[in-house]
Amino acid sequence: MKHARPLPNYLVQRYHGWKATSFAENKSWYRRLASEGQHPRAMIISCCDSRVHVTSIFGADQGEFFIHRNIANLVPPYEPDGQKHGTSATIEYAVAALKVAHIIVIGHSSCGGVRGFYDMTTGAAPELTEDTSFIGRWMDTLKPGYDRVKDSCSGDDCVAALERQAVMVSLDNLMTFPFVKEAVDDEVLTLHGLWHDIGEGALLCYDPESGDFQPV
Amino acid sequence: MKHARPLPNYLVQRYHGWKATSFAENKSWYRRLASEGQHPRAMIISCCDSRVHVTSIFGADQGEFFIHRNIANLVPPYEPDGQKHGTSATIEYAVAALKVAHIIVIGHSSCGGVRGFYDMTTGAAPELTEDTSFIGRWMDTLKPGYDRVKDSCSGDDCVAALERQAVMVSLDNLMTFPFVKEAVDDEVLTLHGLWHDIGEGALLCYDPESGDFQPV
Amino acid sequence: MKHARPLPNYLVQRYHGWKATSFAENKSWYRRLASEGQHPRAMIISCCDSRVHVTSIFGADQGEFFIHRNIANLVPPYEPDGQKHGTSATIEYAVAALKVAHIIVIGHSSCGGVRGFYDMTTGAAPELTEDTSFIGRWMDTLKPGYDRVKDSCSGDDCVAALERQAVMVSLDNLMTFPFVKEAVDDEVLTLHGLWHDIGEGALLCYDPESGDFQPV
Amino acid sequence: MKHARPLPNYLVQRYHGWKATSFAENKSWYRRLASEGQHPRAMIISCCDSRVHVTSIFGADQGEFFIHRNIANLVPPYEPDGQKHGTSATIEYAVAALKVAHIIVIGHSSCGGVRGFYDMTTGAAPELTEDTSFIGRWMDTLKPGYDRVKDSCSGDDCVAALERQAVMVSLDNLMTFPFVKEAVDDEVLTLHGLWHDIGEGALLCYDPESGDFQPV
Repeated sequence: MKHARPLPNYLVQRYHGWKATSFAENKSWYRRLASEGQHPRAMIISCCDSRVHVTSIFGADQGEFFIHRNIANLVPPYEPDGQKHGTSATIEYAVAALKVAHIIVIGHSSCGGVRGFYDMTTGAAPELTEDTSFIGRWMDTLKPGYDRVKDSCSGDDCVAALERQAVMVSLDNLMTFPFVKEAVDDEVLTLHGLWHDIGEGALLCYDPESGDFQPV
Repeated sequence: MKHARPLPNYLVQRYHGWKATSFAENKSWYRRLASEGQHPRAMIISCCDSRVHVTSIFGADQGEFFIHRNIANLVPPYEPDGQKHGTSATIEYAVAALKVAHIIVIGHSSCGGVRGFYDMTTGAAPELTEDTSFIGRWMDTLKPGYDRVKDSCSGDDCVAALERQAVMVSLDNLMTFPFVKEAVDDEVLTLHGLWHDIGEGALLCYDPESGDFQPV
Repeated sequence: MKHARPLPNYLVQRYHGWKATSFAENKSWYRRLASEGQHPRAMIISCCDSRVHVTSIFGADQGEFFIHRNIANLVPPYEPDGQKHGTSATIEYAVAALKVAHIIVIGHSSCGGVRGFYDMTTGAAPELTEDTSFIGRWMDTLKPGYDRVKDSCSGDDCVAALERQAVMVSLDNLMTFPFVKEAVDDEVLTLHGLWHDIGEGALLCYDPESGDFQPV
Repeated sequence: MKHARPLPNYLVQRYHGWKATSFAENKSWYRRLASEGQHPRAMIISCCDSRVHVTSIFGADQGEFFIHRNIANLVPPYEPDGQKHGTSATIEYAVAALKVAHIIVIGHSSCGGVRGFYDMTTGAAPELTEDTSFIGRWMDTLKPGYDRVKDSCSGDDCVAALERQAVMVSLDNLMTFPFVKEAVDDEVLTLHGLWHDIGEGALLCYDPESGDFQPV
């Protein structure tokens, strides 16, 4: 930890601006949030991508969304083996501790993780196949989705299809968690899958009946 | 995936409002982001907690921050064992693919994950010690921090101290990743540790020389 | 070039101070900027006036703004005649090479170039009418703006009106560049006109519907 | 001008933050600057490049520098032909109206304009040779510099050499302006040439005796 540096000045300035305006104007809410705790209605699982902020898209204020962000908004299958599983921990906390009413998985266009998975699978990025590749091993989660589409797509079409498969694989894997399945069966939790187009601002929702993503 | 439901109406409304206003006003930027890709200056590792949004605190717009959010903003040690390591994948992507200039770990007050760890360690939450507890196993990452403070704190003081230790453990673990250490040694990457008080809006930065967190 | 002199000592001192502090604290960002190139979101066209620094007003850090500064923040009409057109070159680079999302023209109070134009037009500065007057010939760009206001203003009111006309004329002339018009029509580029009052710190934005400048 | 749009929200926020802090703290200076006018000691001619801000490097506050920024910080030769010459107008204003004591030309590493010139000259960018290319025609100004180095460099070495030549050509061309030469001969104006390395933060000054750029 001796490598830690002071906060870059541009962020210090921005923080002080926020403190003097946004925080000051909403101080009572921040103090209630601190003393009464958080009671978010929904958990969002989205990508780390700098271009997709669900707080912006859904105009969410502090206290509304419990947000987990990882590479390609993936949920791996349930694996209670005593190892560290970060995404699984967030889902466990959201469902068992916070008792959220919704888990929303949101994928997006031009997803670097999905592109990396495609390149790895087509042999264009062999380095991602190595044990030492964290991106490669994390994106292995997407394999069931690839198996579903690989024979009916090619090139960029495949990448777009895989962005949607990432959401669908995550929805499937969520249901492998007993505490998720139980809450869904008890009708105290619903699952939702979205796909967002960055350049057009479009938002589509997964519809199991058609097996397609439809504009919301 | 057959359990997926339509997007709750309150979010559909919010999205359409965003599309007609925020998106429409910034459409040229969104379209450039889509066609030219993301070039974020910094990666932020923060907690899923609904009360802490770095995009708000730092007034960050789309394209600025690559954001990974997990339980208690923890970074586990480097472990290239061919298993799925979600947090490690985000760091690998940020440093190797996006070439961010900064990684900022931000902890906060009233962290549920840290509180859970403390309860687990003091015997108040035995269920977190089981193999099947994802939260418990994830929070094991904090143990080195606990060893440093356990003899000099008790009760709520311990929890507050552990929130800061979470940041320090993460900073230490970041440097166990060869590609992080190399970039830091090459002076193309800097690491930063922050702690945020939700109710007071305070922001403190870890200072290795004093070993303390100082107001920014 | 044999007339070049050493850098004045007060600037040598300031530079070394910057190197030891601001540069050192942000070195990773500067190194990334050097190796990865610039990706500014916006182009600013502002006046050379020493009292107006958009990096200050908008808290912009290195890498954010592509800035062209000339006399009276003017953009001349599109003229692809094979001659040297400096301002046109900056716009071409910003739109075609850097693919900025916004071009912002910012005018200001007490603009010496605008005052010079007014004096030239009212006969108070005949020397500006000569072929050898670069200021005079450059400020001819403002003539369409003068024609719009000359019958409804006098004295200092005219100068203030002309400062706003400088912004409006520049916005009009920007659209005479095919590559600007095309990007605007494709919605990958937006144009903005601002006027800044130095003494009061005010910032107004041109609103085409009212034809007026409104506080931001 | 009917295409003008509201100021993007992220800049509106930044402006209000500046108004509440930086402007408020320095209001007396801004008001004096507004009523008494500007009296900058130096004129800076630098590149539009978003990574090079002389106000940052030299810690210059409002009122200190009259700043002209164009592609590759070039000054074309004196040409009093009654046409619009933007850079010439800025120099005329600085010397004749503001009576600055110094004109400082500052070039930099990784200059896109210089790279474009090199590609144009070596046939790698034929589009820049057309009459319609503003960048190409503007960069023709650098040709005398290219003639000096073309036989003793190749590839990236040439580009680095040309960045320095851009400064030297500009210094030469400054002296073709009678009002500049006169002020220099009268010893009321000095000229200076600098080259700045973005990634290393280095600053070199042109020394006519050695014909080289030396660290300041």
